[in-house]
Amino acid sequence: MSAPIIAIDAMGGDFGPHCIVPASIACLAEYPSLHLVLVGQSELIESLIARHSGVDRARLRVEHADEVIGMDDQPAQALRGKPDSSMRISLELVRDGVAQACVSAGNTGALMALSRHVLKTLPGIDRPAMVTAIPTQAGFCHLLDLGANVDCSAEHLYQFAVMGSVTAEALGTVSPRVALLNVGTEEVKGNQQVKLAASLLQQSQGLNYIGFVEGDGLYRGEADVVVCDGFVGNVLLKSSEGLAAMIAGRIEVLFKSSLVAKMVGTLALPLLRRLQGELAPAKHNGASFVGLQGIVVKSHGAAGPEGFKSAIRRALQEIDENLPERLQGRLEEHLS
Amino acid sequence: MSAPIIAIDAMGGDFGPHCIVPASIACLAEYPSLHLVLVGQSELIESLIARHSGVDRARLRVEHADEVIGMDDQPAQALRGKPDSSMRISLELVRDGVAQACVSAGNTGALMALSRHVLKTLPGIDRPAMVTAIPTQAGFCHLLDLGANVDCSAEHLYQFAVMGSVTAEALGTVSPRVALLNVGTEEVKGNQQVKLAASLLQQSQGLNYIGFVEGDGLYRGEADVVVCDGFVGNVLLKSSEGLAAMIAGRIEVLFKSSLVAKMVGTLALPLLRRLQGELAPAKHNGASFVGLQGIVVKSHGAAGPEGFKSAIRRALQEIDENLPERLQGRLEEHLS
Repeated sequence: MSAPIIAIDAMGGDFGPHCIVPASIACLAEYPSLHLVLVGQSELIESLIARHSGVDRARLRVEHADEVIGMDDQPAQALRGKPDSSMRISLELVRDGVAQACVSAGNTGALMALSRHVLKTLPGIDRPAMVTAIPTQAGFCHLLDLGANVDCSAEHLYQFAVMGSVTAEALGTVSPRVALLNVGTEEVKGNQQVKLAASLLQQSQGLNYIGFVEGDGLYRGEADVVVCDGFVGNVLLKSSEGLAAMIAGRIEVLFKSSLVAKMVGTLALPLLRRLQGELAPAKHNGASFVGLQGIVVKSHGAAGPEGFKSAIRRALQEIDENLPERLQGRLEEHLS
Repeated sequence: MSAPIIAIDAMGGDFGPHCIVPASIACLAEYPSLHLVLVGQSELIESLIARHSGVDRARLRVEHADEVIGMDDQPAQALRGKPDSSMRISLELVRDGVAQACVSAGNTGALMALSRHVLKTLPGIDRPAMVTAIPTQAGFCHLLDLGANVDCSAEHLYQFAVMGSVTAEALGTVSPRVALLNVGTEEVKGNQQVKLAASLLQQSQGLNYIGFVEGDGLYRGEADVVVCDGFVGNVLLKSSEGLAAMIAGRIEVLFKSSLVAKMVGTLALPLLRRLQGELAPAKHNGASFVGLQGIVVKSHGAAGPEGFKSAIRRALQEIDENLPERLQGRLEEHLS
């Protein structure tokens, strides 16, 4: 295949180009065939590139964009009020075939709205979903939706299940076990949408649907793909992030509570830091928007350079696997 | 006030009377004025009591119940098919004024259905809610609903907010900060119910409503009372339980990964065990059903004797504070 080209929205996220430019340059060094297009305020971006030596400019292009979408901008404003935003131009590069994927750490709502508008959804998909891999006792599971859709019908949940299954497969899981997130595992449990989605999934062919999973079962690794509406997924992801941070904080306090504890703590800290990294999946892994005619990876707004590099790696993997085409093929089987 | 009397459903939970009888006897020793009525299969319960010496039988009565509600029984079955269940008779003791509270570790759905049927809701309350205290960076917060109601309207969320606020106050928080759980903190975020509930709460008087809180903000301690529908609350609570267990497991593995780590681990283990206890709130604290004409505390099905004792303590505190009457008074102000 030809060399992968990724369009990078260089202006998004809490840290903007000061984080994204170094992360991008590091990825170029890591992947010798990778090409990047950094989209944003070209003067600023060029000045940040100039701080690095030995950058292969044949593989790093800067595309100017006049406007920046703020973290507080409404999706409607991003769609109609800022035609020259770095985010939009990055997506247009994908639409026009100049790049094969877009990575942004910007405003999630705006990125979703612009992605739908610029790239369009795949046939049969009403709404794209946001999916990421979160760690479990058994490895990890793909959770979707994470907040793109706060009011979901049973059909939407069914589409998410198909998309999640194909994504998990593309990323290396054989015959992924697909489950619906619910408040109990018995058939009568749950709200209307979940019960209806369950009956749709039971009738579906070619999906390894295993039934309901609860919040604790998810972390026990009972499923490879866990499906829920965006409200629930967002709460689950963010509360997990908050709980992991709280536990890390408590452990530090614990290890300062006495002299012995302090000594133990000094020894244990590197181990615990490693764990903490694993447990902030959103910050570290990037999330994909699936169901679009193109690859869009969302890096966490608060991600540092390491997190942003992970998002670029995820985009590369999806390019390698040709995820949108693969999805389209499977969707035709499932939703026909 | 007169001596508190609590009716104990001795048959519920994963461990049944083998856990509940010793926990009950321990509480009698701890609270010299407490009276308990153990409801269930009297022969079995008596034989378990007989294993203990020095039990003050003047404060411990056994009430026979022929039937037991299984953990898999449907609420409808519990309501109509088992008129002589230990759970139902325990609740009837509260209804008839024989006891001031009921504690059960049994089937949550059945307990909620029977509680509503036997005790009835307070005037103005459509649905009782399930509330527990979960640990945060700042102390703890009262989260409701936890699964009793999976499809909630804005009015239900509003009622939960009022009930949560009064409960937090009764349990010692001055002017509790009340927040709605949402996928963002901006006004436009969220699903229809949450947005509508927000406008109801903004108009309300006498509630310290502070707006939206996200999953991570909850664990940062941004609110004292966090309101959500039962689907979301159940997922949040169970996934937090699962994540805390996973982290504890990972820490143990981490501390066995090398000789140094093993030594550190041996020293750190007691500290970490303490933390783990704090982080399994449902197992350890018990949850209250609020909005009923009586006090009902649900102990976690998998709770051991310590967890069941906590549930009895919570019931005692609610009796002390006369929670249902206090709630009724405040509901009249808020919902009139």
